[in-house]
This record gives sequence, structure tokens and C-alpha cells, in this order.
Amino acid sequence: MADRLAELSARLAELGCEALLVLAGSAQDPDLAPFVGAVHLGECQLVAPRGGAARLAFLTPMEREEAAATGLTLITPEDLEHTRWQSEALEPADLAVWVATRALQLSGLSPGRIALAGHGPAGVVQAACARLAKDGWVWVPGNGVVLALRKRKTAAEVEAIRAAATGTCEAMRAVARLLSAATVTDGALWLEGEPLRIARLRTAVAQTLAQQGLEQPKGNIIAPGDEGGVPHSIGTDERVLRPGESLVVDLFPRGPLFFADCTRTFCVGEPPEPLARAWAAVHAAVERARERAVPGARGWDIQESVCALFTAHGELTPISSPGTTTGYVHNLGHGVGLVLHEQPIFKKVSGAEGVLREGDVFTLEPGLYHPEQGFGVRLEDLVRLDEDGALESLTPLPYDLDPRAYL
Amino acid sequence: MADRLAELSARLAELGCEALLVLAGSAQDPDLAPFVGAVHLGECQLVAPRGGAARLAFLTPMEREEAAATGLTLITPEDLEHTRWQSEALEPADLAVWVATRALQLSGLSPGRIALAGHGPAGVVQAACARLAKDGWVWVPGNGVVLALRKRKTAAEVEAIRAAATGTCEAMRAVARLLSAATVTDGALWLEGEPLRIARLRTAVAQTLAQQGLEQPKGNIIAPGDEGGVPHSIGTDERVLRPGESLVVDLFPRGPLFFADCTRTFCVGEPPEPLARAWAAVHAAVERARERAVPGARGWDIQESVCALFTAHGELTPISSPGTTTGYVHNLGHGVGLVLHEQPIFKKVSGAEGVLREGDVFTLEPGLYHPEQGFGVRLEDLVRLDEDGALESLTPLPYDLDPRAYL
Repeated sequence: MADRLAELSARLAELGCEALLVLAGSAQDPDLAPFVGAVHLGECQLVAPRGGAARLAFLTPMEREEAAATGLTLITPEDLEHTRWQSEALEPADLAVWVATRALQLSGLSPGRIALAGHGPAGVVQAACARLAKDGWVWVPGNGVVLALRKRKTAAEVEAIRAAATGTCEAMRAVARLLSAATVTDGALWLEGEPLRIARLRTAVAQTLAQQGLEQPKGNIIAPGDEGGVPHSIGTDERVLRPGESLVVDLFPRGPLFFADCTRTFCVGEPPEPLARAWAAVHAAVERARERAVPGARGWDIQESVCALFTAHGELTPISSPGTTTGYVHNLGHGVGLVLHEQPIFKKVSGAEGVLREGDVFTLEPGLYHPEQGFGVRLEDLVRLDEDGALESLTPLPYDLDPRAYL
Repeated sequence: MADRLAELSARLAELGCEALLVLAGSAQDPDLAPFVGAVHLGECQLVAPRGGAARLAFLTPMEREEAAATGLTLITPEDLEHTRWQSEALEPADLAVWVATRALQLSGLSPGRIALAGHGPAGVVQAACARLAKDGWVWVPGNGVVLALRKRKTAAEVEAIRAAATGTCEAMRAVARLLSAATVTDGALWLEGEPLRIARLRTAVAQTLAQQGLEQPKGNIIAPGDEGGVPHSIGTDERVLRPGESLVVDLFPRGPLFFADCTRTFCVGEPPEPLARAWAAVHAAVERARERAVPGARGWDIQESVCALFTAHGELTPISSPGTTTGYVHNLGHGVGLVLHEQPIFKKVSGAEGVLREGDVFTLEPGLYHPEQGFGVRLEDLVRLDEDGALESLTPLPYDLDPRAYL
């Protein structure tokens, strides 16, 4: 936290800002959580003056204990004269203006340049900021500042992501168990007297994750055959699985705050040769990506290297054929944290957001897609660079197509 | 939908606005979902001109089919020249300005008054709106406009809430089953050779909800004894349950889009007399609230009636003792929909948001809290007023303290 506040001060200085103001609907706001941790708070605001201590303003006396658990200097409902404005039944924008004005004043600030972060209702944010601008406050977009601060995970954050990743692996094994137990009749997989459908796998995933304290606010992808050949397709619940078909299982659940992300591709029975070949290429790509993911490496350089590997396998890539919908059609990975897609990024950028560093947690997820041939393959690990720069996989599962390898 | 757009036009006319602009990070945005339904979309914008057809702007060609499923007139990535701005790697605020400008223009609008709704990163929203204001666009807060439109649920929305409520009842029964199966040893509840802890109930709830396709983005409350005496307390996982103790179980899960909300209070074994008396008073209060919840009734009037009932039972209330933390300490209920707390409201307000109408879905949840005596009681039903004005409970469970009544 001290490191993070020091880094924040440096960034505020670059922007010429006096402070960061975070508007949040709850403590789960990804721009607030890095400063307050896992606490239960409703609407609140954080003021972090450049070089000073951060202050948290909360609105309800019932939240006193949760607010105290943040360890921050508090601006209490009493400081905000909440009984007065509650009886006046302020409009949301009036309330936001009142709280921000008091919180900035109580933090020793007078009207000046403020970096603005957090999330909220667009109409309320616009109206509140316009009114505060009339009082002399000058706004600088600040969501990107906190996004950059979130890139390097603290030890506690890594543990939270590790717990989510462990539960994700458990759910992947639950899928593998069902697939391994299925029998083949008339070209379809059967289990317990019924055709095995995607819906059954989805229920097993949800239940396994629930047991681990994980949820899926962004859903999941369990996409067979040609559906798995389109990276965007989530898979149709009613569809019955077939032997020799690819099945892309991409799980990205969240614990109380942090996401995990992992993909495996299964095939029950003998894979057709094009699928087996694509799997081998993707497997080689994920191994290459893991080798090259070292501190200081640019995400884009690794993407280029993986594209070269796929090109050597005769596949199209976004570099050889921009906009291709067959072959390798997407980016190599993304940072994972309070938001499913954060920094580092693997796009062609020149900034620090595109460079891997110690403390980063990110995915490596090469894939090959041939919807016209009825299959897709993706292998995705969630990895971290530890303090010594060593790469650790947080999703240490086999890569095999055969689900029995996971038991 | 046609009704909703007609009502929107009327409200835009009142505000003197030419259109509603909704900025959304996904189709789950509660200000967007009422217009697009259950589809999978990332960042997008909706423009609904007063008296005209709504248009949806989406940013990724991959989302073409999902966008088409909304039935709205589409502004495609090609219309937005996405290949151009993607290669230019716009900042988030630049992108929002570009998309809004094109979407407003393509909807036939020229700079004028626009109601702004949706949700987004505060710094990005502020910067984008400030830049658009320089082009002559004038912003009026519009989140409240959509909030009011959401009050009356469509038939499809009621079905989605009903499904969530049915799953919630299933989870409540799962809790009742565990409590019913427990035995008493040394003043504690035991199950399967272990002391029965809150954590065990929480896991059963999560698993049962997962099986029903429900998640708990806002958690739950499973609060025994004195913890249940504080409405804000969620209950401590490690705590072992005891006979004769109250247990407040408040579940508020969400399906793909819609929330449900239901509370029951359990007691294994003979309830102590103060708990039994409080339960009887709360039971009478929920019955009274259900009788009085008719179209045209003001939420606040029903709250007053319930307060009078509790006063007659010798309990403090927010009317007799503002700010009380014992007795009846909160409001009677709230609307439920895309957001857990929406309209109608039961506060002392003069507007339509405080009046119950056909099509409304809301909770009725009286409770009594005596943390100093170590107990709390809350009974909460999710109800709707149908098109004929009849009250239907979406959570038709018993009210009993004895969990065996639920089997």
C-alpha cells in the first residue's frame, strides 16, 4: 500500500494534479479496492492527496466498522453532516457534489487539478463534475492512473488470485470427470442414461465454483466443435457432445474481488488429424510464450513470436492477415486482477502497460480456430512473474485433449 | 418495449431533451438492459430520440449477431469506422466522444439537450461529456429517467424475476433441511459429526443457487443470534449454531439479469419467549403490509401502518425514535429488478416513485432487532402487483421459525 501510494504521488505529479478523487458505488469498485481491500461498503469516495495520506468518506453510520477496517483516515457520515442531507433528500448529483466538496476540503485541498477515477452513473457523474468545475475544480481523467497502479499485484492480491485459480482448476477437473465418464452411443456422448449436453457441464462448473466461493459474473465459454471455432461463442446449452469433437472450456470466475482465467480444450475419443495437429501447434505456442514471458519482455514481442510459430505451421495470424477469422485470430493474453482484462497488455504499444514486470499476473492463451472445419483449440494459463522474475503457473493443469489426463 | 419508449418520450419532453443517450460498459448495464434484453455485448451506446426509434451502437464486429438479437436499429462498427480508430488506439474518452458523436448524428440529432444515462468510468465520462459540451451538446442527468421507466416490469421481466425467486426459495429450503437434520449436543447444533457452522449453510446456499443458474453478486446474510440483531451484519462463517437462537437468512441472488430477495428467520428447538413474541409481531406486520399493498397505495403510508403495529407491541420504530438501533430500525421494502434496490420506494416522498402500481415488483420486509437480547427477526417476501392489481407472492414459503415447516 505504501509503495502504491508513493507510485500514485509520482503519477499525480506527472499529471500536475493535487490529488486523486475516486467516486465509487461500492468498495468493489476496481479503482477503490486497491486502496481499501476486501471490505463491505456502499457508496463512498476516496481522496488521495499527492504525497499525503488517503482519506475515505463513507455515508452510512452502519458502515463504521467496515470503514475502520481499511486502516485509512476516515471522513465519517457525521463529518459529512449526513443527518442534514438525508432529511433534505438530495438528488444523487447533489449528494456527490456535497460529499466530494467536504472530502476534498477535509483533505486540505482547495480548488485545483484533480485526477478523477472510480465508476458511477454517467448522468450523475457528469452533473456533479460540471457543478464542481464551476467551483474551480479542474478534472483530469484518472481511471488510467489507477489501472496502471493495479498492474503490479501485492502479495495479498496474488493469494486472492491464486485461490480463484485453484478453484478454477477444480471446476476444469469436474468437466474432465464428466467427459471421462461418458460413453459413446450413435455418435453422441451419453452419461447416466441421457445425452451429455453443454448445460450439464455448465451446471457442474457453477456448482464446483460455488463450493470454492467463486462466481461467474462474466459467464463462461463451453463451446463444442464449430462453436469453439469462433472465440466469441459461449456454446449452446442444448447441444449434445460428440466423440472426436473439440470442446473449448474457458472459465473466468471471480472470488470476492479477484478474477482467475483458464482455458483447456478437450476431445473425447480419437481426435481427427487436423484437430490433433492444431493442438500440437497451440501446445508449442503456449510453451514458447511461457519461455519468453520474462521481466522486461514486451507483450507484443511475444505475440509476434507466437505468430511466427503459427505461420511456420501454415496458419494465418493477425500479423500475416489482419482481421482473419481462421487460424490464430486474437491476442496472446491480458493482465488479470480486479477486472478480467487489465494490464499488462499484449498489443503493439510503446508504454509500460505493454511490458511484463515482476508482480504482474496475466494470461497466455494462444489458440487456433477453424470453424469451417468444425473445431477450435485454445490453451490458456494464468501465470505470474514472482519477485525474482520467475514465471509461476497459477493453473498447473495438463494440456491434454484427453480428459482422462486430468483425473 | 413500445410502452416503455412512449413513456420515455413523455419524460424527455418534460425535461426538454431531444434524446436519451445511454453509455454502457456492457449489455448488463441497468440503464441499457431495459431496451436490449438479455444479450451479450461489451461497451456500447444507445440513442433514443424523443418520439423516434432507438439505435444501438456497438464496437466489435464479433458482436454483430448479439446486437441484431436486440431488434433495434444498429449502428455498426463499420458505421463507426472502427478499423480507423482501432489503429489509432484512441484513449477511452476519445473513443466515447467519437462513438457518441457518430451515434447522435446517425440518429438525426444535432447539438442540443440530451438526457444522459448508463454507467462508466468517472474520469472517462467526465472528460467525454466536457468535450462534447464544447460541440454544443447540453447534458441533463438521465439515470433517474430510466430508473422510473424500470419500475413497471414487463411480462418477460416478471418471468425472469419469478425464476430467480423460485431458485431463492429452493436455497431457503436447503438451509431448512440442514437445520432440520441437525442434532443438539452440549448446547450446539451438530450435523454429520461436526458442529454446524454458518459456513456450511453458506456453501449449501451457493451450491443450490448455482444449480438454478443464480449467483450472489451482493453476497447474502446468514446471521445468528446477536449478529442477526444488527441488520447490516452478514454473519460470521466460523460461528457454530445453537438451539433456541434466531437465525436470519436473507438471500438476494441474481439470474442473468434480474435479482430476487427473500428473508426468513429460523430457530431450531423451542424459541425463547422474547423471540417468539417478536416473531409473532413481525408476522402480523408482514400480513398487514401484504393487505395494504394495493395499487395507488403510498409505500410510506404502509410503513407508517407497520410502525403503528410495532408501537402497539411496545417496540421502538424509526417514526417514534428516529435513529433507533433496537426494535424496528429500517424501511419496509424496496423495488427489485435489474438493481437490488430500485423503485417503488417506501420512504416519505411525494413523487410517483413512492406509489405502488400494477406491474411493480417489490419486497415487504418488516423486522425486529434486539442485539442486546441476542436476536433479530426479519420476514421478507418478494411480491408483485399483477395487471389486475392483485398481490402475488413470488416467494411463497412458510413464515415459521421451525425449519421443519419448510420441508
